[in-house]
Amino acid sequence: MALTGVLRPGHVAIRVLEMGPALKHYTEVLGLIEVARDDQGRVFLKAWDEHDHHSVVLREADEAGMDYMGWLVDSHGSLEALAAAVKESGLCTNLEWIPAGEHPATGVRFRFVIPTGHVMELYAKKEKVGNDCGEDGPDINPRPWPDGLRGMAPSRFDHCLLYGDDLDGTVELFTKVLGFGVAEQVMAGPDKSLMIGAFLSCSNKAHDVAFIRQPVKGKFHHASFHLGSWEQVLRAGDIISRTRTSIDIGPTRHGITRGETIYFFDPSGNRNEVFCGGYVYYPDKPTITWWEQELGAGIFYHDRKLNEAFLSVFT
Amino acid sequence: MALTGVLRPGHVAIRVLEMGPALKHYTEVLGLIEVARDDQGRVFLKAWDEHDHHSVVLREADEAGMDYMGWLVDSHGSLEALAAAVKESGLCTNLEWIPAGEHPATGVRFRFVIPTGHVMELYAKKEKVGNDCGEDGPDINPRPWPDGLRGMAPSRFDHCLLYGDDLDGTVELFTKVLGFGVAEQVMAGPDKSLMIGAFLSCSNKAHDVAFIRQPVKGKFHHASFHLGSWEQVLRAGDIISRTRTSIDIGPTRHGITRGETIYFFDPSGNRNEVFCGGYVYYPDKPTITWWEQELGAGIFYHDRKLNEAFLSVFT
Amino acid sequence: MALTGVLRPGHVAIRVLEMGPALKHYTEVLGLIEVARDDQGRVFLKAWDEHDHHSVVLREADEAGMDYMGWLVDSHGSLEALAAAVKESGLCTNLEWIPAGEHPATGVRFRFVIPTGHVMELYAKKEKVGNDCGEDGPDINPRPWPDGLRGMAPSRFDHCLLYGDDLDGTVELFTKVLGFGVAEQVMAGPDKSLMIGAFLSCSNKAHDVAFIRQPVKGKFHHASFHLGSWEQVLRAGDIISRTRTSIDIGPTRHGITRGETIYFFDPSGNRNEVFCGGYVYYPDKPTITWWEQELGAGIFYHDRKLNEAFLSVFT
Amino acid sequence: MALTGVLRPGHVAIRVLEMGPALKHYTEVLGLIEVARDDQGRVFLKAWDEHDHHSVVLREADEAGMDYMGWLVDSHGSLEALAAAVKESGLCTNLEWIPAGEHPATGVRFRFVIPTGHVMELYAKKEKVGNDCGEDGPDINPRPWPDGLRGMAPSRFDHCLLYGDDLDGTVELFTKVLGFGVAEQVMAGPDKSLMIGAFLSCSNKAHDVAFIRQPVKGKFHHASFHLGSWEQVLRAGDIISRTRTSIDIGPTRHGITRGETIYFFDPSGNRNEVFCGGYVYYPDKPTITWWEQELGAGIFYHDRKLNEAFLSVFT
Repeated sequence: MALTGVLRPGHVAIRVLEMGPALKHYTEVLGLIEVARDDQGRVFLKAWDEHDHHSVVLREADEAGMDYMGWLVDSHGSLEALAAAVKESGLCTNLEWIPAGEHPATGVRFRFVIPTGHVMELYAKKEKVGNDCGEDGPDINPRPWPDGLRGMAPSRFDHCLLYGDDLDGTVELFTKVLGFGVAEQVMAGPDKSLMIGAFLSCSNKAHDVAFIRQPVKGKFHHASFHLGSWEQVLRAGDIISRTRTSIDIGPTRHGITRGETIYFFDPSGNRNEVFCGGYVYYPDKPTITWWEQELGAGIFYHDRKLNEAFLSVFT
Repeated sequence: MALTGVLRPGHVAIRVLEMGPALKHYTEVLGLIEVARDDQGRVFLKAWDEHDHHSVVLREADEAGMDYMGWLVDSHGSLEALAAAVKESGLCTNLEWIPAGEHPATGVRFRFVIPTGHVMELYAKKEKVGNDCGEDGPDINPRPWPDGLRGMAPSRFDHCLLYGDDLDGTVELFTKVLGFGVAEQVMAGPDKSLMIGAFLSCSNKAHDVAFIRQPVKGKFHHASFHLGSWEQVLRAGDIISRTRTSIDIGPTRHGITRGETIYFFDPSGNRNEVFCGGYVYYPDKPTITWWEQELGAGIFYHDRKLNEAFLSVFT
Repeated sequence: MALTGVLRPGHVAIRVLEMGPALKHYTEVLGLIEVARDDQGRVFLKAWDEHDHHSVVLREADEAGMDYMGWLVDSHGSLEALAAAVKESGLCTNLEWIPAGEHPATGVRFRFVIPTGHVMELYAKKEKVGNDCGEDGPDINPRPWPDGLRGMAPSRFDHCLLYGDDLDGTVELFTKVLGFGVAEQVMAGPDKSLMIGAFLSCSNKAHDVAFIRQPVKGKFHHASFHLGSWEQVLRAGDIISRTRTSIDIGPTRHGITRGETIYFFDPSGNRNEVFCGGYVYYPDKPTITWWEQELGAGIFYHDRKLNEAFLSVFT
Repeated sequence: MALTGVLRPGHVAIRVLEMGPALKHYTEVLGLIEVARDDQGRVFLKAWDEHDHHSVVLREADEAGMDYMGWLVDSHGSLEALAAAVKESGLCTNLEWIPAGEHPATGVRFRFVIPTGHVMELYAKKEKVGNDCGEDGPDINPRPWPDGLRGMAPSRFDHCLLYGDDLDGTVELFTKVLGFGVAEQVMAGPDKSLMIGAFLSCSNKAHDVAFIRQPVKGKFHHASFHLGSWEQVLRAGDIISRTRTSIDIGPTRHGITRGETIYFFDPSGNRNEVFCGGYVYYPDKPTITWWEQELGAGIFYHDRKLNEAFLSVFT
């Protein structure tokens, strides 16, 4: 198989301060679909074009932020091999196996804490529930989009951007152990040798996860969801205003990844992004380098200015 | 590495009846960039966002059509292993190694004829020449698109659609030997068990190559190039008309792959496509099935009718 | 006032064979809003961004086609002056006044038959009902689009294209009596002196009504509705297919008026268009001329071919 | 004629500090076409889809800002009648006739200072030079856009936004004497009875000129140019960054007029806008009212916040 090992970001578990407003936000404003609740009160959601059972998990807590991010791997064999390799690397702590069924419709998950302090999981199995486009049965003679979409209606959960201190360790883990490539990097220091940002891909996407070096542990900058066009980014901006959702910045373009984007906050202060565009990444594509002094243009290409709020607000 | 083995379609070699008009078409109308000529008179071109030396090869000949399609693999080790596996499979004929340098800036290529009669190549090395976006050096602080684009200006060569008889053999080769997945299939016959079309992916793209069962050997339906938006598809239609290029069909949407598309012919009668859109494919994504009686909608979603000229004209 | 006399096409009355399927088409597929029914069984509809009470009237009849088209004029004084001028011109027949209230929420209408055999009306009064965008009252602090849109959701009824024999008489009426300009014309004959098509504007729109010379009386080619973008034209095509609506042609671009367009049929066989784009017309703008031999490109710019079905099917 | 009296904003005369950088900006970044220079050193430019000789006049001066704005009227008779009405109104000062030829290819202009201190002109004649789209002669069988476009390539000069003190007098002049309608207004004060902004239209455009009440005389906020799509607004943002043009704000959407927009500065500090979208205005359309407390959303709909720099920077 040409795509092997870690296939994609499969879920992100987000802490919210109150479930009611959070659910309203994620289903009516962002436009995800609720698929399950469990007896802990967690709510599981998916985007319309995802085939897997869920991709977002909401949990009520006293503090906003990300609990963990989960990665689908291509087989149980790969899961065991990668778990062994993570252990072997010595880069991670708190390694544990979460039993099958702890997430509904999901197999066993291997959980670990990476050098930047984030909790990551690998898993090989989640029930396929399809995308409601098939007109004569699941995946048979499909239409291009289903009826009944609400809100911004992104097609899928795409990536997270995370803040943490030991960027070197985390990048080593993702590239050497988990098989990711560095699509883009931000370099600082007098000789531009200090990596302060890394955009990592395990696929043809410009990023599946990104990390920024910050003197914190396990912090969450945003979860991002994919739209089909720049016109849908405009429409997302209209919905943000119409629903009095707290906007962060956009519509605009990123220099890094070329994406066309808008940012906003859920009612608990967790940042969301919806975006479109970007290029096709391959593992042999040269890494794009941004110098710290051009980071303004790297983050928001049109105004080329560092945006303090964008950099300093996270959960 | 998460993307392994066969990485992408790296070149297509097209026969044209006269080089002059062909070059004008591929550089001014389609908008590729000429990068080299060789002493056989072949001309090598690339799209603006491709990093490799070339992706299209034009050769003057008495008959239009496709000479061969080349696939980049991730390493010389993979190249040797895949060459051995192709040989072992017994599915292919005319196996041969083409020496490095036969294509400029390109390493050795392993060439073979697949069951549908098409010539395919695997290779592991082609010089990186970049995309002209870096503002402070190659791949450093890039802008999202370069200056000086001409014509439709697709970002890359994307895939080919090919006609041939032994579809079963070719699909077996691509899926069992080369590691592709079947993203979509068209099924005919009273019990819908005869595959008459296969859309194959070695990446996150909805297709890297597609085959239609037809009682011919080695025929070429079209080579396709990627655009960034539906508005660029409209602009492509305007350019087709402005330049009196022979149009085939579009703008419209495909049911199969969901792409937004327009088709036209080069001066030798070879069909080109430019398109945008489609979904993200993964190897675990359920194969989409189209029934033959819904094939009209599968090919051109808006009018749901089989288009005789689209099906019967090829080179 | 800078816009004076005839302001805009205010309504089109369309005959349908069965009201049930027609209404489903005009409200769910096209996406107009039903605003009233009368005791004759007529149904009155409007588009979401129209402020007037209605713009489309459906009537069940044995034959499809257009009953009449109505034009809003700027004042009762203008209505009386234009009625007198129409009478004076001697170009029209069957002049009559329709009493106020015959259309709900509408004042008196002056009705007449024009040289091409179409029934036209002038009126100065129709109740304003607004567009549902105001957030703090009608027209106060509006959002850019309302909630609850369905189907293609055009913003307004835009124009009709009509077929008839005495094009010269009708163009004389519209230009000399009603104050329209000829934005574009199609010229035939050995010295290109025979006008066979006229696109007439009483506003900044590229056309408010168009006529094609055909040896018939009072025939209806299509009623057209306005969309905001080329992406909405694509979406209209998706909806056409999804709802198994009979498509005519598109998405494509017109040469005449530059509009981006798609055509389809209501269940009675009346042709509808949704489109976007075009230029800003002014009365001093030079008339654009199309030669009959370039009419293919004039009608559908991308393929430059005359489409027999598009020309010969009307109601 | 249905469009009568004042037809459109025909030119804006802008002062720039240095002609070289200004010309580079207006021709290469904005993408206007230079059409003439005169012996005073003034440079005359037009947008590609304008038929008149020029629409922008640049003059080197010690201070940036707007010299005057000119309005095309429909005939010499209207020009004389409107000049008499302006005089009669007693609202304006410094009335004078500028002789034909003072602007190249332009007839006599009637110039006057309006209550907000801006210099306005009316004129009835300017040479038509066409739009370069006709393939078989001017305005014959045109293509939708010409070859050789540069920069953002707006289709036309659209409107100005101006700051001044006596808003009541200026609105009275435009509505009662010049025949404009108030498309949108911003109302302040405890009972929302003080007009602080007026968006005035003499056409189907949502605005041809706008005024904001500020304790200044004759100040210039921006000149605006029309683009065909939201994707072109994105491209304008890319060009702004690529050329290191000073950006103000955007891409975003206006609440007022619904336009999709981006703002930036010429090298002298004069603000430019390029935008698309908006609705079709008619003189009977109810005026849209924005309350001062919703002005943030009125100006930039997505973030709903008053932007101090946008309000306080002008020339």
